[in-house]
Amino acid sequence: MLWNKQFGKSLAKFALSARDKLLRISTYIYPTMNVVILAAGMGKRMQSSLPKVLHALAGKPLLNHVIATARQLQASNICVIYGHGGEQVPRTVAAEDLRFALQEPQLGTGHAVAQALPVLDVNQPTLVLYGDVPLTTTASLARLIAAAGKDKLGVLTVDMADPTGLGRIVREDGVIKRIVEQKDANETERQITETNTGIMAIPTAHLQKWLGNLSNKNAQGEYYLTDIVAQAVADGVEVVSAQPDAVWETLGVNSKVQLAELERTHQKNIALKLLEQGVGLYDPARIDVRGNLQCGRDVTIDVGCVFIGEVHLEDGVSIGPNCVINNARIAAGSNIKAFCHIEDAVVGAKSQIGPYARLRPGTELAEDVHIGNFVEVKNSQIAAHSKANHLAYIGDATIGSRVNIGAGTITCNYDGVNKSRTIIEDDAFIGSDTQLVAPVRVGKGATLGAGTTLTKDAPEGKLTVSRAKQITIDGWQRPVKIKK
Amino acid sequence: MLWNKQFGKSLAKFALSARDKLLRISTYIYPTMNVVILAAGMGKRMQSSLPKVLHALAGKPLLNHVIATARQLQASNICVIYGHGGEQVPRTVAAEDLRFALQEPQLGTGHAVAQALPVLDVNQPTLVLYGDVPLTTTASLARLIAAAGKDKLGVLTVDMADPTGLGRIVREDGVIKRIVEQKDANETERQITETNTGIMAIPTAHLQKWLGNLSNKNAQGEYYLTDIVAQAVADGVEVVSAQPDAVWETLGVNSKVQLAELERTHQKNIALKLLEQGVGLYDPARIDVRGNLQCGRDVTIDVGCVFIGEVHLEDGVSIGPNCVINNARIAAGSNIKAFCHIEDAVVGAKSQIGPYARLRPGTELAEDVHIGNFVEVKNSQIAAHSKANHLAYIGDATIGSRVNIGAGTITCNYDGVNKSRTIIEDDAFIGSDTQLVAPVRVGKGATLGAGTTLTKDAPEGKLTVSRAKQITIDGWQRPVKIKK
Amino acid sequence: MLWNKQFGKSLAKFALSARDKLLRISTYIYPTMNVVILAAGMGKRMQSSLPKVLHALAGKPLLNHVIATARQLQASNICVIYGHGGEQVPRTVAAEDLRFALQEPQLGTGHAVAQALPVLDVNQPTLVLYGDVPLTTTASLARLIAAAGKDKLGVLTVDMADPTGLGRIVREDGVIKRIVEQKDANETERQITETNTGIMAIPTAHLQKWLGNLSNKNAQGEYYLTDIVAQAVADGVEVVSAQPDAVWETLGVNSKVQLAELERTHQKNIALKLLEQGVGLYDPARIDVRGNLQCGRDVTIDVGCVFIGEVHLEDGVSIGPNCVINNARIAAGSNIKAFCHIEDAVVGAKSQIGPYARLRPGTELAEDVHIGNFVEVKNSQIAAHSKANHLAYIGDATIGSRVNIGAGTITCNYDGVNKSRTIIEDDAFIGSDTQLVAPVRVGKGATLGAGTTLTKDAPEGKLTVSRAKQITIDGWQRPVKIKK
Repeated sequence: MLWNKQFGKSLAKFALSARDKLLRISTYIYPTMNVVILAAGMGKRMQSSLPKVLHALAGKPLLNHVIATARQLQASNICVIYGHGGEQVPRTVAAEDLRFALQEPQLGTGHAVAQALPVLDVNQPTLVLYGDVPLTTTASLARLIAAAGKDKLGVLTVDMADPTGLGRIVREDGVIKRIVEQKDANETERQITETNTGIMAIPTAHLQKWLGNLSNKNAQGEYYLTDIVAQAVADGVEVVSAQPDAVWETLGVNSKVQLAELERTHQKNIALKLLEQGVGLYDPARIDVRGNLQCGRDVTIDVGCVFIGEVHLEDGVSIGPNCVINNARIAAGSNIKAFCHIEDAVVGAKSQIGPYARLRPGTELAEDVHIGNFVEVKNSQIAAHSKANHLAYIGDATIGSRVNIGAGTITCNYDGVNKSRTIIEDDAFIGSDTQLVAPVRVGKGATLGAGTTLTKDAPEGKLTVSRAKQITIDGWQRPVKIKK
Repeated sequence: MLWNKQFGKSLAKFALSARDKLLRISTYIYPTMNVVILAAGMGKRMQSSLPKVLHALAGKPLLNHVIATARQLQASNICVIYGHGGEQVPRTVAAEDLRFALQEPQLGTGHAVAQALPVLDVNQPTLVLYGDVPLTTTASLARLIAAAGKDKLGVLTVDMADPTGLGRIVREDGVIKRIVEQKDANETERQITETNTGIMAIPTAHLQKWLGNLSNKNAQGEYYLTDIVAQAVADGVEVVSAQPDAVWETLGVNSKVQLAELERTHQKNIALKLLEQGVGLYDPARIDVRGNLQCGRDVTIDVGCVFIGEVHLEDGVSIGPNCVINNARIAAGSNIKAFCHIEDAVVGAKSQIGPYARLRPGTELAEDVHIGNFVEVKNSQIAAHSKANHLAYIGDATIGSRVNIGAGTITCNYDGVNKSRTIIEDDAFIGSDTQLVAPVRVGKGATLGAGTTLTKDAPEGKLTVSRAKQITIDGWQRPVKIKK
Repeated sequence: MLWNKQFGKSLAKFALSARDKLLRISTYIYPTMNVVILAAGMGKRMQSSLPKVLHALAGKPLLNHVIATARQLQASNICVIYGHGGEQVPRTVAAEDLRFALQEPQLGTGHAVAQALPVLDVNQPTLVLYGDVPLTTTASLARLIAAAGKDKLGVLTVDMADPTGLGRIVREDGVIKRIVEQKDANETERQITETNTGIMAIPTAHLQKWLGNLSNKNAQGEYYLTDIVAQAVADGVEVVSAQPDAVWETLGVNSKVQLAELERTHQKNIALKLLEQGVGLYDPARIDVRGNLQCGRDVTIDVGCVFIGEVHLEDGVSIGPNCVINNARIAAGSNIKAFCHIEDAVVGAKSQIGPYARLRPGTELAEDVHIGNFVEVKNSQIAAHSKANHLAYIGDATIGSRVNIGAGTITCNYDGVNKSRTIIEDDAFIGSDTQLVAPVRVGKGATLGAGTTLTKDAPEGKLTVSRAKQITIDGWQRPVKIKK
């Protein structure tokens, strides 16, 4: 997700402006709070050696989605509870603003939250989130936090068409009295469709007391966070609720099936948001965005494209079918044709890329550059109006303006141990199937003959060539089929 | 969408035969009529600088879909109403059979239709269509026109599961009495699910009178076309209705979300039609047709393909996954493998193309031609049984039969200012990595050695080569890693 | 679907282990039985010259799915009934364990089953299946067979939300009394939603008698298998039933629309199974498996991939977007990037392949091999840690360890009639744009200069080159635009 350092100033500027924008968005003042994220479950049903919360949704670990949400809420204090065997968790998501607590053994959700008690600020409420519930929106959580205020217990509840298996919210005269689990519910309670999501906003001083009172005298022998609701009622603490805008905000991931379902939900949401911003999508069900895709006006994206990391498509950019674009900025009016693969690159305005063009890290194209089929560009700068339209490898090169790179041209940038640069100055014409044995320089306006192996600099304005005489062999016989 | 002129006779014949077919289809005699197409709305919600009706559905502006429908109905007179800022509209869709009228200022649908009055033939009924409602079928409109006849007012109405916000059709004893808008409807009227689509067939003499009587004394201060229904009833003109076969026929586009939804509806319809014609589709939800795809018998199309313009796939053609095919004819029994990109090209029978083959405009392949991976062909004719199987660029070339083009072969067709042709005669064998510096000719049965730079013609039947002597340097040391 | 013989031992072992696994799975002992598969319908609605049952679902003829099911049930005797014009059927699916009977003329389903009577073992029950009903599971059929036992008539029935047009199961006190067709059903019977699938398990001695008693005195003038139910009831033979787990198990294919629907159902089932096994799928709706895809732990598959034949992805393999993989084994930890096309190939552990890499039949890559963009490998072995990262053609080559193949390298393996091998020994460095004119050998640690045409062996440890002197032409003038 990080921009390659070598992109230099222009990209750094872009990165900054993206951050600036984020900062501007974040100026809404949330009340300060602690956030505890439960992330200790290993998730056996994932059938993976990776801890569950590290599985990726939209290219980012589930847990990171929840951490990002906590940060958007401007939590003053974020504590992640990880479990035995989950040491990868703190290693993977470590950041200055995160604290981690190990829950070992794992004795239930109440016990998990208790591990965070030492680091919680008792003067702020505590929001409990789940590392495997990635899509809760800040809007929904803000409503919950607002409802709970400083001294109420807030529960995020959701109406389910089929609530079977879930804890039901039991109300009397509209007031939440307790949460009853499926197996303990009577016939009337089982009809209740309002269910517990597990997400709660809790006055922290009360939380300390209530966690201390939890009992594990139940079928599972675990300490349940849910049981604090009954304690709140008993203590006369008001229990309030808020609802999310959609059920998927509260869904957790316990298997690859559920992960795939939430991935599609998330991608559908992203596609809808892009459409609402005015981006033209040929098929909203066939775009994948794994990161942050920013689009200007009149951008169109064809079917089957995948966007990864930070991608910025400026006004009027069109992306052809089946492209993969990873960390890139495509400037206004450029046309990326089918089957392009672009990574850590910058494409200048009004450029024509592809089909089948591969731009690798460190590629910086200026305005009106043409990169055609079966051309690979790596760690190279190409100035305005230059073209490499056919079958070429351009690596570690600095190319001027109005340069024509012939079909089959190869920069020989690697001698087996070292990489060297090729410099091609403005207006040079590189004949087809030329090898530029770097380090080498082609002067301004120079021409290289087709098939040249350039081992020394080519002077400007002149024709340079290395070519054996063309001869025709008389009496030569074509090979004949060898019998096997 | 136009066939490239240089394709010559074979394509011209194809184009003609497609037109012939269209003419035959169109022999059903519709009553003559005027068609007015309302296309003045800018569509702010599209968030685009392009007028709304010019946004593309299936690769063609919304408005062009409606114009095509009007033409299929054999309207004698088609008038498009465009608005201020929409000057692009007449420029984009201009054609001999279209008239345009500017509506400025925009004072409602009734006012819009009034702009067309000067050009309407008063002896024929007038059909009012909408430039942003692209998918109404001629079958549905034919029913409406038939119902209206010469002297009735016909309204296309549609039953909506949720009619909220739409104008309801109020009937008494089954007879249409008026159209009532959502905000003016009483409780009973709001229960009505039959709604107004806005599409009407109107006796033109009456239309003139009714439009003159319209009032803008309403909340929006606009002249509504809908209000002519009440006038018809008052004048004792019978108001009749017809219904479309599907709701999507009547849906308009006001946002990119709605555009994407209609695009998918349209593509689903096209896929279904192809399946019904016997085309094998691996996934009907993953084919995009933007133009006219004609298929012979036993054609199969794999997932992720995009077809643009006029594409003709003859009997037994199979198209592999993820191909993009734009204006092309693929003759019987040919196999287009994965990742091909074909544009303005003709592929002969029983040919093998791809994977990763790019055929650019002006490519004409005869029977049993093989074009393999990472090969680009442009503006070239290749005769029967010839092969270019690997990494090659063939541009501006005329290639005979049974020619073998070695891997890495490049036609150097461009010297920086001029393009020149390469001619390769029958049975020639072009060694790998050869450059053919055009203009140049390779004679019949000639062989070129690998790595040859051919600058002069190669005589027939002989081996021609340009090759430096292979030498081995004793005592040479490999480069060593330079410390940085 | 068969592994290429030249893959040698490693693949043979793989094939065996897959078979072993199958054998282990198959140790459940089914009762012995005859299976009759009705496959005589031509399927006019398919609009194809191919008999209906030979149309492919998931890359395999419909009939082969049913035969595979019969084999999994360990039928001792499988008889396929084909029809006039369907001679392609026995030719296509022929196998030692299959018998074929021609039904000509085609006088109904009862008549079709009668053609198999001569080959049925009268001491075993007979299961009747349909060649155009491909997705019935062995689990459902096993229940049917268990219910029928040796002396009852078993009917597979299914509840349909809309049973219109289907034969209804008429029960009295829960006991099946008869099957009534739509047109013969009274109002009460039409309310029945339990319908006949046509799939039956029948005591064979009874079957002989019942078929002999069938009458064709009905609207179609055909002998219906269904009519044996009434005979069973009359004979006091108990009629029992079993139900499939899903409606799609009983759906038949009569058109390309239905074929496409079942294809998607089948692919959805496969995707779900992969997810349940722990495979990570970015979009379960965008993967196609036409054969057998075996996956290890922590495998991820990106969108738009197609798997054909036997494909084995070992632990930790990741497959990028839009790949096509046909008969291949990808060893642990390898990364197949976007747009790869792999066929009959083996990829060693921790290798990096693509994007845009094509591995053709006979490719065997060892551990940590890198094959990059626009590189084609065919019938070649490449040992550990070797790399061919850019635009190259490697055909009929044996390549050692730690070899670096420069960009644009081409093995000239074909002289127009014969193919020859290239051998490159360990640690060789092949300069860019080199042609290796096979048969040729590059010795251990040899270096080839860029642009070399290698026609004789290159000795080990030394630099070999064929290169013309680089010259610069003074006073040369660039071409000027020719006016046309």
